[in-house]
Parts: sequence; structure tokens; C-alpha cells
Amino acid sequence: MTTITINPKLKADTFELGQLNGQTLLLMKNSLVPWFIVLPNTHETELFKLDKSERAKLDKNIDLLSGFLVNHFKTEKLNIATIGNIVSQMHVHIIGRCVDDPFWPGVVWGQAKKTEYKKEEVERMIQLLSHEFTNHFCKALL
Amino acid sequence: MTTITINPKLKADTFELGQLNGQTLLLMKNSLVPWFIVLPNTHETELFKLDKSERAKLDKNIDLLSGFLVNHFKTEKLNIATIGNIVSQMHVHIIGRCVDDPFWPGVVWGQAKKTEYKKEEVERMIQLLSHEFTNHFCKALL
Repeated sequence: MTTITINPKLKADTFELGQLNGQTLLLMKNSLVPWFIVLPNTHETELFKLDKSERAKLDKNIDLLSGFLVNHFKTEKLNIATIGNIVSQMHVHIIGRCVDDPFWPGVVWGQAKKTEYKKEEVERMIQLLSHEFTNHFCKALL
Repeated sequence: MTTITINPKLKADTFELGQLNGQTLLLMKNSLVPWFIVLPNTHETELFKLDKSERAKLDKNIDLLSGFLVNHFKTEKLNIATIGNIVSQMHVHIIGRCVDDPFWPGVVWGQAKKTEYKKEEVERMIQLLSHEFTNHFCKALL
């Protein structure tokens, strides 16, 4: 298995929540929108180069997190994307959007507006994930 | 099979190129970046609700178009996304980006800058797709 190191910019911009089906799960440090990032275990930078097993896990994780956002947050639309213009390490954004979030209907990328999470909000997120994905989620040591 | 009608805004913003593995393939009317849009045959608006067969076709089409962009355009990074904040009909963007395109390193959504395609450029794109995807692509009647 490929072992990845989280890119320093991604690391600075997110909380590392844990592993979801063996892929790294991050939370963007902006509580204005619920915004997950999944990192497959690969050194490839493009989705179409990802090997089958990691792609299947990624698809599964996208679906799990989509359901999680719809169930636990006011999510009226999901935004799912792999961009990588600034950080080329492969990472997929899974974001819950609603009409009264401050960026709607625009996209979230390139926006400066930001609210920091409180420590207990991040802990609550990890608890929720642990509860929902009992056998699939392994939380990070904070 | 679900029959879809292309949303009027999507229709106005794009050229309908044809069907790729039975899914509608559009080209954004902006020649500044090579920008495809694929519409799965569904009335669902979220990827995780898409049925398995359409999802598999969509994954395949994303991969085919990714390779096509890398092979035929100056593509240094692919941007792949399903957003749908403005047009909720499910559609996936597959965009070839490079460091000297006018939006780099920003995202393409929400940008006003635009150059129209010439008719022969669109015809050339369809020819290229027909040549590359002989048995998978069926061109639209322009």
C-alpha cells in the first residue's frame, strides 16, 4: 500500500479527523460550511490514474460522507470535486451546501470568508463520525 | 432507461456534442479552457443517489474524457466536479487546466471571462471525439 504524507498546505488548512476505510479524512478549518476532504493512498495526481481498489474506496467514501452531510447538516446540495490547481496531491472535496450559507450559490474555493471551529465542535464531529461509521472510521490522535 | 431533457440554462451555455456511452456530452461555450459536461440519465440530483449502472458509465466517461483532455490539449491538471448550486440537474464538469489559462490557479466557476468557439472549432472537437471514441460516441445532429 502507498503511504502518503499530507501536503503541508492541506495540513495547515484542515483538521485531520482520521481514516475512513483506510483513506485520510480531513475537515476544512472553516465552520461556515461542513467541508470534508478525502485523500486516497496514492502518489498519482489525477483521478483517472488511481488504481481500482483506491478508486472503489474513494467512491464509497464519497457516498458515505454525502449521506452523512445530508443526515446531520442542513445540506440542500452537495458539492464534490477534485481540483488540485494549488495542491496537486490528490484530494477530493465533499461539501454540504445550503441556500443560506455565506457563499451560496457560488463555489467555496477561492473565498476568503472564514469562521474557526471551536475545539469541542471538532471533537463532536469526530464523535458523530465514529458513531455513524463504527467499523469504517478510525479517529486520528489529536 | 430514464430520458432526460437538458436544463435550459445548461442548454444555453453549451454545445451538445453527442452521446458518450449513452450519456449526454456537452461542451461549455468558452474556448478559453477545454470544458466538458456529462449528464447521466437520471432525475436524481446527487451523485450518491445515482444507480449503479449510470454511476459506472459516468466513472468510465470521466476517465475517457480525462485521457482525451490530457492527450489532445495542454492539460497540466484536470478539474472534475459536480456542483449544481445553480442548475440542480446532475451534471459533471471535466475540465483541462494549465498554468497559462486565464483562470489559473483559480477555479473556472463564477468567472465572467469568455471567448466564443468558432463553428469549425466545435466541428473539429466532434471529429476528434468521433475518432477517439469510435464505438462509444454518437454525435448529435447540429
